[in-house]
Amino acid sequence: MGNFTHFNEQGRARMVDISEKKESVRVAIARSSVTVNKEIYDQIQEGTNKKGDVFAVSQVAGIMGAKKTADLIPMCHPLSLNGVDVHFEWSLSTEKEEYVILITTEVKVKGNTGVEMEALTAASTTALTIYDMCKALDKNMVIGPTYLLKKTGGKSDDYERTQA
Amino acid sequence: MGNFTHFNEQGRARMVDISEKKESVRVAIARSSVTVNKEIYDQIQEGTNKKGDVFAVSQVAGIMGAKKTADLIPMCHPLSLNGVDVHFEWSLSTEKEEYVILITTEVKVKGNTGVEMEALTAASTTALTIYDMCKALDKNMVIGPTYLLKKTGGKSDDYERTQA
Amino acid sequence: MGNFTHFNEQGRARMVDISEKKESVRVAIARSSVTVNKEIYDQIQEGTNKKGDVFAVSQVAGIMGAKKTADLIPMCHPLSLNGVDVHFEWSLSTEKEEYVILITTEVKVKGNTGVEMEALTAASTTALTIYDMCKALDKNMVIGPTYLLKKTGGKSDDYERTQA
Amino acid sequence: MGNFTHFNEQGRARMVDISEKKESVRVAIARSSVTVNKEIYDQIQEGTNKKGDVFAVSQVAGIMGAKKTADLIPMCHPLSLNGVDVHFEWSLSTEKEEYVILITTEVKVKGNTGVEMEALTAASTTALTIYDMCKALDKNMVIGPTYLLKKTGGKSDDYERTQA
Amino acid sequence: MGNFTHFNEQGRARMVDISEKKESVRVAIARSSVTVNKEIYDQIQEGTNKKGDVFAVSQVAGIMGAKKTADLIPMCHPLSLNGVDVHFEWSLSTEKEEYVILITTEVKVKGNTGVEMEALTAASTTALTIYDMCKALDKNMVIGPTYLLKKTGGKSDDYERTQA
Amino acid sequence: MGNFTHFNEQGRARMVDISEKKESVRVAIARSSVTVNKEIYDQIQEGTNKKGDVFAVSQVAGIMGAKKTADLIPMCHPLSLNGVDVHFEWSLSTEKEEYVILITTEVKVKGNTGVEMEALTAASTTALTIYDMCKALDKNMVIGPTYLLKKTGGKSDDYERTQA
Repeated sequence: MGNFTHFNEQGRARMVDISEKKESVRVAIARSSVTVNKEIYDQIQEGTNKKGDVFAVSQVAGIMGAKKTADLIPMCHPLSLNGVDVHFEWSLSTEKEEYVILITTEVKVKGNTGVEMEALTAASTTALTIYDMCKALDKNMVIGPTYLLKKTGGKSDDYERTQA
Repeated sequence: MGNFTHFNEQGRARMVDISEKKESVRVAIARSSVTVNKEIYDQIQEGTNKKGDVFAVSQVAGIMGAKKTADLIPMCHPLSLNGVDVHFEWSLSTEKEEYVILITTEVKVKGNTGVEMEALTAASTTALTIYDMCKALDKNMVIGPTYLLKKTGGKSDDYERTQA
Repeated sequence: MGNFTHFNEQGRARMVDISEKKESVRVAIARSSVTVNKEIYDQIQEGTNKKGDVFAVSQVAGIMGAKKTADLIPMCHPLSLNGVDVHFEWSLSTEKEEYVILITTEVKVKGNTGVEMEALTAASTTALTIYDMCKALDKNMVIGPTYLLKKTGGKSDDYERTQA
Repeated sequence: MGNFTHFNEQGRARMVDISEKKESVRVAIARSSVTVNKEIYDQIQEGTNKKGDVFAVSQVAGIMGAKKTADLIPMCHPLSLNGVDVHFEWSLSTEKEEYVILITTEVKVKGNTGVEMEALTAASTTALTIYDMCKALDKNMVIGPTYLLKKTGGKSDDYERTQA
Repeated sequence: MGNFTHFNEQGRARMVDISEKKESVRVAIARSSVTVNKEIYDQIQEGTNKKGDVFAVSQVAGIMGAKKTADLIPMCHPLSLNGVDVHFEWSLSTEKEEYVILITTEVKVKGNTGVEMEALTAASTTALTIYDMCKALDKNMVIGPTYLLKKTGGKSDDYERTQA
Repeated sequence: MGNFTHFNEQGRARMVDISEKKESVRVAIARSSVTVNKEIYDQIQEGTNKKGDVFAVSQVAGIMGAKKTADLIPMCHPLSLNGVDVHFEWSLSTEKEEYVILITTEVKVKGNTGVEMEALTAASTTALTIYDMCKALDKNMVIGPTYLLKKTGGKSDDYERTQA
């Protein structure tokens, strides 16, 4: 059956036994994004400066989403997360009329398995919430690509993304 | 405050009142994807034909994810979904060594608001679960782009994506 | 693929589309049980009459369990349940030293699909909670058999169990 | 057993059968509050005007809390809420050095039972979240009193609070 | 930004990093209440002595509510609670015709952050459930005030409420 | 009140304090079953070999069910499960025309309380899901009996079932 650790000898999925793994501080950083049009860009900017802050709502959703990871992803271990943080940044290319919200999530745990799924779930939930709050204006928005940026702690080598 | 309907006159988010909207059958179709390397491609193919079916697990996760949409996205209305379906398709470009799993989700409801967020959440959860089950082999996988393909029902015009 | 309605043409599970089904009042009645030893029987009886009522706790769990059905059973449709009731009865056979708690659950909905899974989930959750509260005294308890007693409403014929 | 409708003839709690009740638009408005000290008052004011908006987070929590009502309150019927709104207002009495955040929640549904529990749960969750975000500064904060302000729709007479 | 620890340098909420905090046994005790009229008082008393025990249901809700704290309060850390207890007491003032149910909750954890939010959430959920079960008789009930009574364990000084 | 540890001195249920219990690796193995008719047996066999795998879906449900134990069973402690596995086996008696799916679940945790409720909940959820996916063909299916097979770890003696 190759090395898919998530399957038992019957070929059925299982939650892998991690009771023998060492406890250590583990961190994962993930990235997602939402590409919007100029109208949405303008309105989000206006709201962020004054009222109707789209980012405030979606960032709360992202943090709560991190806590729901084991409830959403069947083989994920439930973990007592120690810290979750979400950041936003605009990536603009006015000539191409491209308005991209970059979402960076960081999750930390002192535990015996990594938190990349929690960081990716936080990033996805944040992006979905931005989409929800802007969808009355435009349905052509695009979420992602979504991927892991960095991962430290645990026995396997630390990971840092090299490709764009 | 422009036309962000999700904010009240205090500039704070709200769940928009839809009690006056008409009930009708509404459908939304969304797309996500996971780009994997050759090793994962080979192993998923082997498992799908015999045992250790990554798609079987992630597709269950996607359907359950659709039902959790209102729990994840703060301003989403809880809806009694009437049907959810998830499909998989490989998009291969062997010369570029690109192995992409295309995920298509379809959600249906007889209700008074649309289900695009449910379709997008199902697609995202399916993709995250594929990632989780393959991450021991490669951490460079990429989820998405994730977007709406089609939407019918309700008062606003039907939507069908034209851009790639 | 025979007539398993829960699979799509790819052979993958789906939540069946019920948007065309008629709304009607539907009722389902299910049964489970917990077989306990004399010591537990005596203590439950004492608690029911005075304090420490095992049934009070497990019956609350059963009602809340009914509401979690669509969250537990992947292909179940979320439903706005209209009524849930749980009853207890002792079935004693002192010569065989058998002490059986019979659990009967009744679930009602005005909706477009039946509620047998909700009644069965309520019965199972009630039984599991009784087990949990008594397990310090005996680990030989047995839950069930658990089955559907009756079902009315909807297009298919009403069902009433004939076998024991 | 008097007229506690929430108990069956065994004296055990049940979810009352509402399948015969008429569907209508129902609204409930509830009130809670958090009494804080001057330091917290100053910091919340500063954050609301610039950054670190305590109200933004707690109001998202309140809306999501309304959706969790049937998951929290055992005998509550699950309802597909149609609208939720949360407002904040300061009630200050500088001579008594009293700084009170008034929370007003409004919940709307087209359904066959009222939404007072949803409005009260939204108000409580909003207040608990304010407490959580300020507790590093002071543990003497007081939540509530929490009560129903108004209720319309349904067969029983509309209610409006007369006492303070 | 003052000392609101719950905000990051972008002024957005975060779940504070507690991975460096020491594990210790931590206890929190909270208080809430429900003020009812004479009719409800009489019926609850009758039910407690015989059947239809309002307290039994609401106390189960309170314990389950404690376990849902991190799901309700956005910035709360998920914790593996070690113990939860709920007590009831009547505070009567027959001349003022005041009938108050005092709710006291105690939560314990061996972990690296305190459990005051869990104790307060348990108290609030207990109170909301009492309200729900009695609301058919009177809508003038008042929940709370709700506050922290005591807190021990952890690095910061132990807290005990001095004001009423 | 005898030795029901789940009740406090008021005779009300509580979540027992386990903060003083020792952490150790604990394992529990549970059994449930679903008795089906020949038609369902044939179709499940066909699906397992090719498409429409009932076991794949119900086994995912069982693993996710294990993670929901503390959410379903009121007095259960939330635990960060370290491993969950589900197995299936047919027990056939063709002369009696009996077709029984045996479900075996194994749950592992490094923690300070046992996981028998998690194993039993996983087994029950797996069985309920099989029932759900086959109920269109037959409503006479029977779930269980469901019971504990084995338990190791912790202070109390290890348990192994001797009765059938």
